Amino acid sequence: MARLISLVEDRGPGLPAVAEALAPHTGRAHVVGVTGAPGVGKSTSTSAFVTALRAQDRRVGVLAVDPSSPFSGGALLGDRVRMSEHTTDDGVFIRSMATRGHLGGLAWATPQALRVLDAAGCDVVLAETVGVGQSEVEVAGLADTTVLLLAPGMGDGVQAAKAGVLEVADVFVVNKADRDGAEQTARDLRNVLAIGAQPGPGGWERPVLCTSAARGDGIAELVAALDAHRRWLDASGERIRRRNARAAAEIQAIAVEKVRAGIDDLRGADGLAHLARQVVAGELDPYRAADKLLGRVRPA
Amino acid sequence: MARLISLVEDRGPGLPAVAEALAPHTGRAHVVGVTGAPGVGKSTSTSAFVTALRAQDRRVGVLAVDPSSPFSGGALLGDRVRMSEHTTDDGVFIRSMATRGHLGGLAWATPQALRVLDAAGCDVVLAETVGVGQSEVEVAGLADTTVLLLAPGMGDGVQAAKAGVLEVADVFVVNKADRDGAEQTARDLRNVLAIGAQPGPGGWERPVLCTSAARGDGIAELVAALDAHRRWLDASGERIRRRNARAAAEIQAIAVEKVRAGIDDLRGADGLAHLARQVVAGELDPYRAADKLLGRVRPA
Repeated sequence: MARLISLVEDRGPGLPAVAEALAPHTGRAHVVGVTGAPGVGKSTSTSAFVTALRAQDRRVGVLAVDPSSPFSGGALLGDRVRMSEHTTDDGVFIRSMATRGHLGGLAWATPQALRVLDAAGCDVVLAETVGVGQSEVEVAGLADTTVLLLAPGMGDGVQAAKAGVLEVADVFVVNKADRDGAEQTARDLRNVLAIGAQPGPGGWERPVLCTSAARGDGIAELVAALDAHRRWLDASGERIRRRNARAAAEIQAIAVEKVRAGIDDLRGADGLAHLARQVVAGELDPYRAADKLLGRVRPA
Repeated sequence: MARLISLVEDRGPGLPAVAEALAPHTGRAHVVGVTGAPGVGKSTSTSAFVTALRAQDRRVGVLAVDPSSPFSGGALLGDRVRMSEHTTDDGVFIRSMATRGHLGGLAWATPQALRVLDAAGCDVVLAETVGVGQSEVEVAGLADTTVLLLAPGMGDGVQAAKAGVLEVADVFVVNKADRDGAEQTARDLRNVLAIGAQPGPGGWERPVLCTSAARGDGIAELVAALDAHRRWLDASGERIRRRNARAAAEIQAIAVEKVRAGIDDLRGADGLAHLARQVVAGELDPYRAADKLLGRVRPA
């Protein structure tokens, strides 16, 4: 699995063949996106969640995505330490993945890596991402179920989380519930959701849970909420709708990436340099130059 | 000009025809990128710089690019107020442009807008951008000459600016030089440059100037430094090298955008939805699906 995910990250030439071989084995795992601002306890929560799932003998994959870092593997060292109790358990697969500072890298590589963990027989795959800007919403688009973590005492945590991710999360967790203000944060959140709530088809009522992941409090309830959401996804037809939309976005991202790679192959070639000189000389406008360039690209 | 730049932002269908008509008239303007962290006085500096250029009867274009905002026109209201003394001068053209939160939007739309200002006969075009993350370096790639503004008393301003932009700037300005610490910041900067300096071909020695844009102090020296850099660019052949590289990047960005648009056109179509369903069912892998999709795309 580690080698397959590296292949995805490195965009190795063997990737399409591997994807073809994996395809019939995908579609079984429950993909859970876990997001939230730095410091809310994502890794501790993920680790506690893994422990609970393993107690039920479910196979678990964890993909820690760091969209802010071009460095892979060692990028989330602190998180790895927190996950260390699981590293000798062969029912758990943990992988950190960076998206290489590449535009669209999150959209492109993450679904492929999730597909590897799915095909490998994981019952649940946790996709954990640092909540930086747009990536929260992007990761939500990759998951069957999206969990947003908040913590009390982070100032205006609910306010800060408002932009986008409140709309896409399915389950809310106020972690560090042993701290002051947890109940207030949960109340604030419920109020915000009550005002802006748009329950999906079939009417999934989005729960707000309180946990203390470091102590293990509330984790059983979180597992139950995620299982309930999965049942709702199946019963309502929402799961297949989300998966179709996700696959469409994935196909598009791969297609754009293929063309981009085809264009990059021409970068060093005389063709592009010649077109550029014509544009600089005012003999050609950049749109016609782009058409000429595209005429030469053979998508791989 | 305002309508042409709106056409660029909106990616109107008439754009290629306009670009073709403009092409023979481009390549004359000196494009100066102005960047720096929020609060260093970019707009005040730009305004003072415009005043100095107008005193020499040079036509000036100002393009204020805000890569963080999807809102155009009114995005930089505060900046517009600062520029208000120039709004009735028909030798000055000022335009705010957002890049619509679109991946690659900065790379795509900004060169086209600069091209409009160039073709319109501006002697100098100032491209001012808020220094957020990667955009500083991107904007540097669009300019003949890149100016990095710093201010004293911004904590570790030199340190903060280190990531990328120190390497690409041609002229450094410590603004707000009437404040404590300006000389120290300039000294720190000169030390950093002396250690890491990589003078370009022909050996452009990158100056560190001190200005107080609000008082107009040091602006004449800044104009002189930018004119000196332009002469150096011409004499060394660096200007044509930069313009060729810029045109190549521009052609690539347009080509990728064309393909992306072509794919988006298929989004609603039955074709992509059908491919997505096959991927979800495990009948097709996403790479082969992308190939099938690309087979249907007609780049516009």
